[in-house]
Amino acid sequence: MKLNSEDRKFLTLAIETATNNIKDRGGPFGAVVVSQGRIISHAGNRVVADHDPTAHAEVEAIRMASAAMGTHDLSSCVIYSSCEPCPMCLGAIYWAGIKRIVYASDRYQAAASGFNDEMIYMELALEREKRSLTMDHGMKDEGDGVFRQWNDFPGKVLY
Amino acid sequence: MKLNSEDRKFLTLAIETATNNIKDRGGPFGAVVVSQGRIISHAGNRVVADHDPTAHAEVEAIRMASAAMGTHDLSSCVIYSSCEPCPMCLGAIYWAGIKRIVYASDRYQAAASGFNDEMIYMELALEREKRSLTMDHGMKDEGDGVFRQWNDFPGKVLY
Repeated sequence: MKLNSEDRKFLTLAIETATNNIKDRGGPFGAVVVSQGRIISHAGNRVVADHDPTAHAEVEAIRMASAAMGTHDLSSCVIYSSCEPCPMCLGAIYWAGIKRIVYASDRYQAAASGFNDEMIYMELALEREKRSLTMDHGMKDEGDGVFRQWNDFPGKVLY
Repeated sequence: MKLNSEDRKFLTLAIETATNNIKDRGGPFGAVVVSQGRIISHAGNRVVADHDPTAHAEVEAIRMASAAMGTHDLSSCVIYSSCEPCPMCLGAIYWAGIKRIVYASDRYQAAASGFNDEMIYMELALEREKRSLTMDHGMKDEGDGVFRQWNDFPGKVLY
C-alpha cells in the first residue's frame, strides 16, 4: 500500500523523533503509535540512557500507548517507525495486536551503522542448536505443570 | 549441556515464579536472571495486569536486572525461564548480550494453552509480503538520513 499524506505526516514525526533522540543520549530510532488518526505516543530508543536493552523506540512507544489506553490490546493502532523493526520489536508489535506498520529505513542500513538487527534475524532463523546463544532445556514436566495449573485456573485472562 | 544442580535451583525458582504469578493476575510464565551464581532479578508475566503487551517474564526480568546492575549489558548473565522464549523475548536476550538461556517448557506447550509464540515464530520466518501484519515502507532517504546524522555524531555510544 502506498503511503498517503497522513502516513507521511506520522512517519515524518517518527523520523524527527529519531533525529532529536540522537542529541538526547539515545539511539537513532523513533516510533509513533496512532489510533484512528490520533497520536497516542511517540518515543525514541533509550537503551543506553535508561540502562534497558529492551528500550527500543517501538517497544517504548507501545508501552506508552498501552499505558495511555489502559489496555495491552493495541489492535486499533498503526505504528510508524523511522526504521524496519528488529525481531524483538516485531514480536512486540504482534503481541500488541497491531495490524500495520509503516517504516522508512531498513535493517541493512541499521547494520551499516553498527546495529545488530540483521544478525538477530539470522540467529532466529537458525535451528536452536546452531545459534550463538546457548539454549539448554530440562525439567520439562515441571515446566509443563505450570500450564496444567493455568488451564485449570478459573480466573485466567487470555491475551 | 546438561543442567547442573545450580541450574536446577534457578530453573525451579523460575517455575515457582510462574506458578505464583498465575494467582497474582499474571500469565503462566516466570524468569530469573543470574550473574556469577547470584540472583539479580526474577519476574513473572505482567501483560494483562500492567496493561503492557511487552511485559513478558523474560523482558521484565531483563529490565529489572539491567536497572539493578546499572547497565544495558548483561553479558555476564544467564537467564532461566519456565518456558522457551517467544521471538520478542529471544530478541531481548540477544540485545542484552546474554549468552545462555535455560528453559523448561516449550513453545508448543504454550500454544496448547492459547499463547501465540509459535504463530509469531512462523510469521517472522515468512517473507515480509506474506505476513499477516501489513508492512508498508517509504521515505527511505529521509529514514536513512537519521543514520547519516548518527554516523557523524561525536557523542554516540554503540551497543
